Amino acid sequence: MNKRSPLAPDHFPKLPIIKGIRLGTAATAMKYKDRDDLLLVSFPEGATVGGVFTKSKCFSAPVGWCRDIMSTKKPAKALLVNAGNANAFTGKAGDDAMASTIASVSENLSCENDQIYVASTGVIGQVLDANLINQHVARVAGALAPNLWQAAAKAILTTDTFPKIATRSAKIGGQEVTINGITKGSGMIAPDMATMLGFIFTDAAIEQNVLQDILSDTTDKSFNSITVDSDTSTSDTVLLFATGAKNRISDVNDPELDDFKEKLADLMLELAHQIVRDGEGATKFITINVSGAEHNAAAKKIAMSIANSPLVKTAIAGEDANWGRIVMAVGKAGEEADRDNLQIYIGGQKVTEHGMGVEGYDEELCTTHLKGQEIDIDVDVAIGTGKATVWTCDLTHDYISINADYRS
Amino acid sequence: MNKRSPLAPDHFPKLPIIKGIRLGTAATAMKYKDRDDLLLVSFPEGATVGGVFTKSKCFSAPVGWCRDIMSTKKPAKALLVNAGNANAFTGKAGDDAMASTIASVSENLSCENDQIYVASTGVIGQVLDANLINQHVARVAGALAPNLWQAAAKAILTTDTFPKIATRSAKIGGQEVTINGITKGSGMIAPDMATMLGFIFTDAAIEQNVLQDILSDTTDKSFNSITVDSDTSTSDTVLLFATGAKNRISDVNDPELDDFKEKLADLMLELAHQIVRDGEGATKFITINVSGAEHNAAAKKIAMSIANSPLVKTAIAGEDANWGRIVMAVGKAGEEADRDNLQIYIGGQKVTEHGMGVEGYDEELCTTHLKGQEIDIDVDVAIGTGKATVWTCDLTHDYISINADYRS
Repeated sequence: MNKRSPLAPDHFPKLPIIKGIRLGTAATAMKYKDRDDLLLVSFPEGATVGGVFTKSKCFSAPVGWCRDIMSTKKPAKALLVNAGNANAFTGKAGDDAMASTIASVSENLSCENDQIYVASTGVIGQVLDANLINQHVARVAGALAPNLWQAAAKAILTTDTFPKIATRSAKIGGQEVTINGITKGSGMIAPDMATMLGFIFTDAAIEQNVLQDILSDTTDKSFNSITVDSDTSTSDTVLLFATGAKNRISDVNDPELDDFKEKLADLMLELAHQIVRDGEGATKFITINVSGAEHNAAAKKIAMSIANSPLVKTAIAGEDANWGRIVMAVGKAGEEADRDNLQIYIGGQKVTEHGMGVEGYDEELCTTHLKGQEIDIDVDVAIGTGKATVWTCDLTHDYISINADYRS
Repeated sequence: MNKRSPLAPDHFPKLPIIKGIRLGTAATAMKYKDRDDLLLVSFPEGATVGGVFTKSKCFSAPVGWCRDIMSTKKPAKALLVNAGNANAFTGKAGDDAMASTIASVSENLSCENDQIYVASTGVIGQVLDANLINQHVARVAGALAPNLWQAAAKAILTTDTFPKIATRSAKIGGQEVTINGITKGSGMIAPDMATMLGFIFTDAAIEQNVLQDILSDTTDKSFNSITVDSDTSTSDTVLLFATGAKNRISDVNDPELDDFKEKLADLMLELAHQIVRDGEGATKFITINVSGAEHNAAAKKIAMSIANSPLVKTAIAGEDANWGRIVMAVGKAGEEADRDNLQIYIGGQKVTEHGMGVEGYDEELCTTHLKGQEIDIDVDVAIGTGKATVWTCDLTHDYISINADYRS
């Protein structure tokens, strides 16, 4: 694993067992030679599943497969993930390789092919060598265990510098349910394209369409509110599996779901933040709040314009309170903003008002804030009530080193 | 001036005199201590003007002023440009400072205020010190000369590493006219926000609305088809002045304009390319052709998605034929693309077809191409007939150094 990110969490939670969910990992040596890179998860009878996938027009074979089988609404039986090869942009050969691994899993777990979810992350444009996976499937399937969450989180990593794990418990109708999540991603990672993958598991009993609605909603404010380098993978995938088979909740507005929704949102946000904290070359974790926009979508567009601006990101890397670049990024977003009433705060200190810099603002205080690891930027564009928060990291020499200094 | 870009042109053309246009420069020491940073240009009676400005919602005082006076359709009498302070995001104080410099020029050139075009580039958020400019205006106005094009091109630079100059002659109705252009810009430049400015001058006789149509059209395929770092300035300005006062052409479709349009497009493209060649940290000049898109706008969006992708730009900096990142950038653009028939060429060599890499393509040949300074990427997305070309540069450690290593 690469040098651990300075923003990595101090410790990792121990994930509780979720009844009926069993996990196993193996080392295919497909790309990484010294660690497990294959994950198989099996589900008890009747697991429902929700999924959110990349919007890329050049989506990977596994993304296409998951979308297709989800529409059948059959219970999910297994999840197979490999790291090191994305099986993206691999044409029919890639589809065939994937089908072969799926057949291998369905045979060993005695289920239908279209009950098996698949995700791949790693090199793009190289056909997956199915044999490297298939030769491990029987052994892994025969030795699945309920407590291998840490191993699972490690097996899906590519150039991440730490495993990303979170857990919550929530109450549904007086019953306690568990939500476990693992994720990977730290930008579109060199030496090849990487991916944001997230897998969440719960023993809650929730109908598929409800699960899907909750997941889509929550993704928008977590995984879809982070950016490392503005580049979108061909393989981004978030799957939420729910194993509870009795008395499934069938109404997304059922108040019994309130606590679950809240805890799930909290867990997904924690996982999303961990991805930013492992952003390539990141030394600062940046929170950008935009308020006063025409509507929430406008606020998010402005916040993303700031978060993706190379000039804002390099200024923060340089610990330079260059708020002019934030003005620039607000201006270029294309959404309504009242230039003459725009207010920008850095670390809670107001630095602009009345269409210009605040006279005598304490630049030293700004700089002190920027020297820290947690950076807060708040912007009020003074038009309406729309608001949004996004998270990103700074843009440093290490990002260039990771992505440009490599030779294939 | 910073270390000259390795992509700078070998030599600069000598610009011919345009009858009636006179130029002068001065050193205000506003920011740059060792060179001229103020340009004044005067026009003969009856000059028409076309202009294209930043779409930023946080546009600078001069941008607002130029837009306003252009709508009056009064003849242009002068152009005043200063480098080192953008007079952007400076509120009423900035407007007042600008008004003071305009009054100083109108007094010295005996014209109306609303005949004077203004552009400022440099630090954002600091009110312009009008006195630093005004104290030079009388002297400069009294010593204007027709042959100071090189000095003019130098006076408008900020952290550019070379002046940007081009000239063409064109025939209109059997008469030869001259087109001179100067421009500046090399990204949104540290230590503060900079700007793309372009000024073009001709002795052609063309009505203002026709001039505007031609300029808008041509900007789209030149200055609006380049990107260094995806960040849009508050102050971007292109102005085209035409001094011919007799028998002005009043129909944009007049075939007499054909040669002029062609030569103007050629000149603007040359200037736009010079900006890319002076892109911050640039070591490669990259041409991206996209064809087969749904329509031309879709093609441009895909081309810009490739040109702005940090992963594509770092791969090229690293001379790595990582075409998977180009697939990614096509996919994330959001426009229709046929994944399974997408064709990507690097340096003229086809590297993808049938939704995967071309078997046995010559990676060595790709790498050799990428080791050069002029990089060609062609992408056919296999949907329709839309096409576009954009130009950009690579993303290197020097970009980070220029923008992050600075401390204010």
